[in-house]
Amino acid sequence: MTTTQAFGTGLFERHHETLDRAREAIRTRAYFSAYPESASGKVYGETAAAEGKTAFDARLGQPFALDQPATGETVAPERSPYGLALGVRYPVADVDALVASAAAAGERWGRIPVEERVGVALEALARINGRSFEMAHAVMHTTGQSFLMAFQAGGPHAQDRALEAVAYAYDEMSRVPERVIWEKPAKPEPLRIEKTYRVVPRGIDLTIGCSTFPTWNAYPGMFASFVTGNAVIVKPHPQAVLPLAITVEVLQGVLREGGYDPQVVTLAVDTPERPLAKVLAQRPEIALLDYTGSTAFGDWLEQHSSALVYTEKAGVNCVVIDSTDDLDGMARNLAMSLSLYSGQMCTTPQNLFVPKDGILAGGSRLPFDDVVGAVVKALDALLGDPARAAGVLGAIATDATLRRIDEENAKPGLVRKSAAVTNPEFPDARVRSPLVAVVDAADRERFEREAFGPIAFIIRTADTQESLRLATGEARKSGAITAIVHTTDAAVLEQAQRWAQDGKVNLAVNLTGPLLVNQSAAFSDFHVTGGNPAGNASLTDAAFVANRFRVIETRTPIA
Amino acid sequence: MTTTQAFGTGLFERHHETLDRAREAIRTRAYFSAYPESASGKVYGETAAAEGKTAFDARLGQPFALDQPATGETVAPERSPYGLALGVRYPVADVDALVASAAAAGERWGRIPVEERVGVALEALARINGRSFEMAHAVMHTTGQSFLMAFQAGGPHAQDRALEAVAYAYDEMSRVPERVIWEKPAKPEPLRIEKTYRVVPRGIDLTIGCSTFPTWNAYPGMFASFVTGNAVIVKPHPQAVLPLAITVEVLQGVLREGGYDPQVVTLAVDTPERPLAKVLAQRPEIALLDYTGSTAFGDWLEQHSSALVYTEKAGVNCVVIDSTDDLDGMARNLAMSLSLYSGQMCTTPQNLFVPKDGILAGGSRLPFDDVVGAVVKALDALLGDPARAAGVLGAIATDATLRRIDEENAKPGLVRKSAAVTNPEFPDARVRSPLVAVVDAADRERFEREAFGPIAFIIRTADTQESLRLATGEARKSGAITAIVHTTDAAVLEQAQRWAQDGKVNLAVNLTGPLLVNQSAAFSDFHVTGGNPAGNASLTDAAFVANRFRVIETRTPIA
Repeated sequence: MTTTQAFGTGLFERHHETLDRAREAIRTRAYFSAYPESASGKVYGETAAAEGKTAFDARLGQPFALDQPATGETVAPERSPYGLALGVRYPVADVDALVASAAAAGERWGRIPVEERVGVALEALARINGRSFEMAHAVMHTTGQSFLMAFQAGGPHAQDRALEAVAYAYDEMSRVPERVIWEKPAKPEPLRIEKTYRVVPRGIDLTIGCSTFPTWNAYPGMFASFVTGNAVIVKPHPQAVLPLAITVEVLQGVLREGGYDPQVVTLAVDTPERPLAKVLAQRPEIALLDYTGSTAFGDWLEQHSSALVYTEKAGVNCVVIDSTDDLDGMARNLAMSLSLYSGQMCTTPQNLFVPKDGILAGGSRLPFDDVVGAVVKALDALLGDPARAAGVLGAIATDATLRRIDEENAKPGLVRKSAAVTNPEFPDARVRSPLVAVVDAADRERFEREAFGPIAFIIRTADTQESLRLATGEARKSGAITAIVHTTDAAVLEQAQRWAQDGKVNLAVNLTGPLLVNQSAAFSDFHVTGGNPAGNASLTDAAFVANRFRVIETRTPIA
Repeated sequence: MTTTQAFGTGLFERHHETLDRAREAIRTRAYFSAYPESASGKVYGETAAAEGKTAFDARLGQPFALDQPATGETVAPERSPYGLALGVRYPVADVDALVASAAAAGERWGRIPVEERVGVALEALARINGRSFEMAHAVMHTTGQSFLMAFQAGGPHAQDRALEAVAYAYDEMSRVPERVIWEKPAKPEPLRIEKTYRVVPRGIDLTIGCSTFPTWNAYPGMFASFVTGNAVIVKPHPQAVLPLAITVEVLQGVLREGGYDPQVVTLAVDTPERPLAKVLAQRPEIALLDYTGSTAFGDWLEQHSSALVYTEKAGVNCVVIDSTDDLDGMARNLAMSLSLYSGQMCTTPQNLFVPKDGILAGGSRLPFDDVVGAVVKALDALLGDPARAAGVLGAIATDATLRRIDEENAKPGLVRKSAAVTNPEFPDARVRSPLVAVVDAADRERFEREAFGPIAFIIRTADTQESLRLATGEARKSGAITAIVHTTDAAVLEQAQRWAQDGKVNLAVNLTGPLLVNQSAAFSDFHVTGGNPAGNASLTDAAFVANRFRVIETRTPIA
């Protein structure tokens, strides 16, 4: 036990400066990144890239060993959108035994001092960071992201989001002192009470991962629950298991090394034919549930699980184009936002509202069709070179998205058809360019629901007032994760801020340069507001972490 | 608009020192009270007591005017447990119009700067404090509390709990800066983004009050929601309307004076025949719901309302008696805890576990029957003088409790029967002394459910191990709000702390002096842990306030 304590405490000491810097960044919301996003050899070492590739290749076609109860069966549900055969075989979990072992491991884990748990988490993050190249290949070949995006979003950016959640949770746990002497004036002598406050976990956290950003979206909830003393069962999307399997492997490794029970964190792999999410979500031992995925299943979980449920679901993201001083910049920025990872980001804009009489651009009136033309032209320019296009677009993650593209390609109003694009490096990759359709404001059935993937609508409205009204209504009804306004008019900007406030959606203003609305920076940007149907929680705020533990007080009078 | 801003900001300035002291007390959990609990003329002024009585008397038999949509009908559902006719007639709310007006008022209220809202709340609390004598009579004659308890718990202690919630909420809203320039290193030049963060409310809060501590239990939720920008509809218990009606009147007065919409806070009075709680709780406009009351209805609300629901329900509070160095002190302390307000506190102990072979008292073995005898004797001594007994016991609030006492009085194992007690001042008051029954550990049906009121069980167990096991099981199954252990044995104390941790209940150790387990001090004690079935929230922690608002971010690149 002494050894264990020294281990956890030692890790906390080793990493406390990183933690302190993260906490400070949260307070100031200034730029901060603990894990370098540059994939250069100078940062990660000249051999890191090759070693990461080798480590990834060594996984292919092999069983993946984890320390947890299993049925003996294995499954290999993943298929690379780039055409590569993965064939990684994961143990099929014995659900009853898995929940029981998580409960037992969590009971012990919850009694360990806060700093030790935080130390273990920070050490695991440092080790995960050291495996960012292996992780990049794992994310790329499960999600269809380009290598660079998979490296950044699946590696250091996800690690920063995890660190942010750990820092928030540590802050919240540290707000209550461990022991005080409470002294109330009284006669003949003051009342003196010793009070101790102890953080206790809620139970088991079930983290349900998604197919597009398996680490970035799962880490905040799972790390917040882990450091607050809860055991964590990770249920990855069957198409994106490997990134979370590697994560669990690293966490189990640090736990084992420290003499803690490695089954504090376990993996429950399922297949589309034998889904486990509902089964696990309805177990009474599950006290916390973190979910990223479809709205329908997120709504089901919110209603049917007795756990505290934190969701990021789908939204319909809108762009209101009123006027601009930089038409080319606006079009370029939008083209990149629409193309990046083929629109398979929950932050990708879908609906671009443009008044039928056009917009003011650089002080002159630009007809509606020319606004449409500028966006299409910028897309064509961005995607003209096949190698660059492949790097921007990545590959299509799921069959459902491919089908959706085919359906939309056959509908009226198309001004840019989605087409197959060849990836020079991976000839079997399923790559599709973005589709743009012009529709009328009245055609709400077409654009009001989420059309996930490289599908955008330019909606012809009566005027900017109608654009704002429709955008606000959609945020309220269907949810929204991002919003953009392009305007040079102070009054319209104020109305757009009202849209953001009433629709409870984060707003970006006049993006014409390198910042994309898709991007969300740890320690500074809140991802999802939690105030509209796109999700009930935000990454990361105090509400996301403060209810993952409880405080137990002991009062003892002092004679 | 300028006048309004000056008003709210002025109030914030006037009260900010009180707020700062409250925030500091929360951080240190040291003793603090903003509103004096002494009812002496020196503190509140020599005429305050008489003026409060006059103000209360003037309410009797009169209509209660509020600024809100009403049907024109009135109801007078209250009856004093002291036998007094109240006859205060409240407007019957037009639910559709009430919800619509709350939504409209809340939309404007949510756009007002945080400090102004906090200023209005603090001013209202100061005015409520000035009416503590009127409030004491209102609480006394609706709940059956003694005058002194009604003054303290219904007045300054409730006001402190409200201030605590305001301070927590202000802390949480202040954690995010209003505006930052975010600068990320990049080539050829850094990326510079202006980011603003704005607090927005969730919607309408529905606060459902209880019959025993109408202000103390309702204030934290309603004031936290109010300062975070939400409109609040208060639905009092039909037996305890007046204290919350006065509260709403004061809040509306400050709002009106400041030029804000007074209908930000409204009252929805119902009767047992025409209940409104379910109707209101299922309205989609209700985004937050604060509830104190029975477990059955609390469970229903948690399952059926789409709002974020914060509950304090019922629990079975246990005392584990293992050994003591101060038998008389222990017995006196328990007698007072059991008698205070006739056991009608959610914090009152119900089940006292004593080993069948007795306990160690002052180093000698004391037989089981003598432990029972000591408790009964202490009750008789405390309640021997009728005037003192009436002051301690108060009166029985509801018919249901009277019936429960009669039923338990007829069951086996009684060692102290509940009897009617005469209140010299109020001959018609319905006062009952505590009942004590000895039961076997096997007789779980008898003691495992809550027996609300002056009903206690002394449970004969095999040994302290069984006592702790049963107490832990009850906290987990039925919930518990308080727990006491009496022991001189360090090993038993450690096991008791495990009981508290596993049952997620706050523990008091060896209470033999003036501190009662029933008491919970604002700024220092967490009331209800939120971790067992007695409630899903705690008064007050960060989790109780942080999800009552959301943050909307705006990002604007800087050229």
